[in-house]
Amino acid sequence: MNAVDIINKTKRKIQLAEDEIKYLVNGYTSGEIPDYQMSAWLMAVCLNGLTEEETVALTLAMRDSGDILDLSCIEKITVDKHSTGGVGDKTSMIIGPAAAACGVAVPKMSGRGLGHTGGTIDKLESIRGYRVDVVFDEFADIVNKTGFSIISQSGQLCPADKKIYALRNSTGTVDSIPLICASIMSKKLALNADCLLLDVKWGSGAFMKTPEDAQRLGTLMEKVGKAAGKKCRAIVTDMNTPLGCCIGNSLEIKEAVELLQGKVKGRLYDICIELTANMLELAGKGTIEECTAMAVDAIASGRALDIFRETVKLQGGDSRICNDVELLPQAKYSHIIYAPRDVEIISVNAEELGMASLILGAGRISKDEDIDYAAGIVLEFEIGDKISMDAPLMTLYSDSVSDFSEAALRAYNAIGFRTLTNSALT
Amino acid sequence: MNAVDIINKTKRKIQLAEDEIKYLVNGYTSGEIPDYQMSAWLMAVCLNGLTEEETVALTLAMRDSGDILDLSCIEKITVDKHSTGGVGDKTSMIIGPAAAACGVAVPKMSGRGLGHTGGTIDKLESIRGYRVDVVFDEFADIVNKTGFSIISQSGQLCPADKKIYALRNSTGTVDSIPLICASIMSKKLALNADCLLLDVKWGSGAFMKTPEDAQRLGTLMEKVGKAAGKKCRAIVTDMNTPLGCCIGNSLEIKEAVELLQGKVKGRLYDICIELTANMLELAGKGTIEECTAMAVDAIASGRALDIFRETVKLQGGDSRICNDVELLPQAKYSHIIYAPRDVEIISVNAEELGMASLILGAGRISKDEDIDYAAGIVLEFEIGDKISMDAPLMTLYSDSVSDFSEAALRAYNAIGFRTLTNSALT
Repeated sequence: MNAVDIINKTKRKIQLAEDEIKYLVNGYTSGEIPDYQMSAWLMAVCLNGLTEEETVALTLAMRDSGDILDLSCIEKITVDKHSTGGVGDKTSMIIGPAAAACGVAVPKMSGRGLGHTGGTIDKLESIRGYRVDVVFDEFADIVNKTGFSIISQSGQLCPADKKIYALRNSTGTVDSIPLICASIMSKKLALNADCLLLDVKWGSGAFMKTPEDAQRLGTLMEKVGKAAGKKCRAIVTDMNTPLGCCIGNSLEIKEAVELLQGKVKGRLYDICIELTANMLELAGKGTIEECTAMAVDAIASGRALDIFRETVKLQGGDSRICNDVELLPQAKYSHIIYAPRDVEIISVNAEELGMASLILGAGRISKDEDIDYAAGIVLEFEIGDKISMDAPLMTLYSDSVSDFSEAALRAYNAIGFRTLTNSALT
Repeated sequence: MNAVDIINKTKRKIQLAEDEIKYLVNGYTSGEIPDYQMSAWLMAVCLNGLTEEETVALTLAMRDSGDILDLSCIEKITVDKHSTGGVGDKTSMIIGPAAAACGVAVPKMSGRGLGHTGGTIDKLESIRGYRVDVVFDEFADIVNKTGFSIISQSGQLCPADKKIYALRNSTGTVDSIPLICASIMSKKLALNADCLLLDVKWGSGAFMKTPEDAQRLGTLMEKVGKAAGKKCRAIVTDMNTPLGCCIGNSLEIKEAVELLQGKVKGRLYDICIELTANMLELAGKGTIEECTAMAVDAIASGRALDIFRETVKLQGGDSRICNDVELLPQAKYSHIIYAPRDVEIISVNAEELGMASLILGAGRISKDEDIDYAAGIVLEFEIGDKISMDAPLMTLYSDSVSDFSEAALRAYNAIGFRTLTNSALT
């Protein structure tokens, strides 16, 4: 077996055998197969695709490149949720405690943000003291106590994915559905929860630009998950508009806490209920209607907030933020953008808002960069709202940048308006 | 401009601008763009192709990566010929002197063999003393004196092609018509002759497996040559059967000399006349009919052999071989394969014969290997010949291998027979 023959097969759309895919993944992880052969193969995959069998084999070979967690020490049925990432997505901090409040265990590992998308780990680190690098035994212990924990991904899980992802990033081979599937699912299968809910986002703020592509990715991930013996479901959600009104790390924790306090409704709340209900139903807690009612009650009763508070405390974080969100990092500088005339909001480019937030300091362009936890954007509208001239559209925050001109222009241009003539707004 | 954007464009079939292609070629040649980015781009080209404009730009960028020869010191019009390589192809040693005998200058640079195909430089080095690494001034001087010289390619020509070719070899990105075109044409345009005849071979012994692919490559190379201001023509020839009856370095020199002595006719002779006539016609020496008559006369009169003798002498080689081919290296060992029954020869797999010859020592698997100049195969038939049982089919020669079993089996299996029943042969 040799790499050139394997590359040639994929180039000619000849299906690879399982052992050929293992040879490739293991050889690349160990360094025997060089970057330049792997990148040629990745490009052949981008253009010719992989079959379902090949995608399953690739995912499992990547999963098996490192540790696979043994969650048998967790007493309750374990449910993991994965979102394909988006702008302003703070659902993990809401649905984890909500599902835990309904009797399942939610052990989660998350990543940091890169580019215009945020990362759950960065968001949690905006809570003073919160430790994301908890060791496995303590992690399992917290999950057994509260039902919920989020920590950062361990370096021992999926080293193959880490190496392949870095290569894809620098060789134009990111946007391939089988490669995205294998990257996500190898990590999720290494975490090894019993049930797995996949939230596949599409739109300007997501990797998948159309609902059809999101559906294809979701269906493929479901198949791979089931082939690996997991209860697995994918649901497709719209990420053209940011989820909720806050973008940025501590701003998103604030919004999540306020939702758990019962103060936030709208699209973010609806999606959180839908995701939680699906997690519960996957875990066998009842019909989807019953599980929806349980999710609603978990938040309305305050039990989900209690779980979040307890978990933050056990991970060393300042749990007083659950009562007083003003204790989260606050930005030194802020800037309000006003409506230039009477307008109706007809579109929002979530990716561009993510970029504006990045410019304010909330994200990082390359790994290992520091980020500004307090930076971000708060939107004052939802799509369809009518806003009168000189009313605030959004507020930009930064602790590190006092000149808002670049970010403000970018954020302003992310909003699509319809001018209201003969408006009765004012 | 950056490599990832360029890779993404080719992946999405967006035509690259000339300066993007220059950036890629120059960056890769200088080492600023790493192997893994170039190999991803090469795979995208293999699968998505390049437009004619892109192929021209790629070829010219590769040509411009090194020296471009100034042939103005050569008095006569210069004509170069390129063959896409094949098994037993010794035409350069015949048509160079033949064309020179008709009043054009043929300054040629050639390469060494790799794998199952031989290289003109290896063949010439089987002539004792022949110097292939003559400096440019002496090369031009020899061409001015005799009309013909072949030397090995200088390291200063097309360093981009050298680096890209090595990468293609190890990343499954060899079989792409635009990449093959750019590789061949960049070197030919750097040599910079006025006229260029391209002999594009197809069949089992050639890169192109079908006449349609050979025609596509030929047409593309003609367009690139004309875009670079050259008189350029491509002709397509069949390489399913080896050209002539000898395969192997000194054996091929022997056959070339015997043809120049007027002793060899058949397919090899016919192709040499056709190629020479086309070179002369391209150089404006007359109609194709007139040029054909000139080519025939150049060989029949012995003038082509005189030129070959003189060139060999000027390059330090033992020119006595032109009168006595037995002075060429002779193999210590030989082995005759006989017809197993009365048969008609219906096919010959040239590639497999090339592999058998390689096993005998005539070629090299990796660069810098030594080769056995006397090793090779002499066929005793042409396709369609009827051979009686126990008559010789072919003779295998080697100076380095005394066990012929592997090569003999491979050579025997390369021949397709039809058994003659109730044969009247014996």
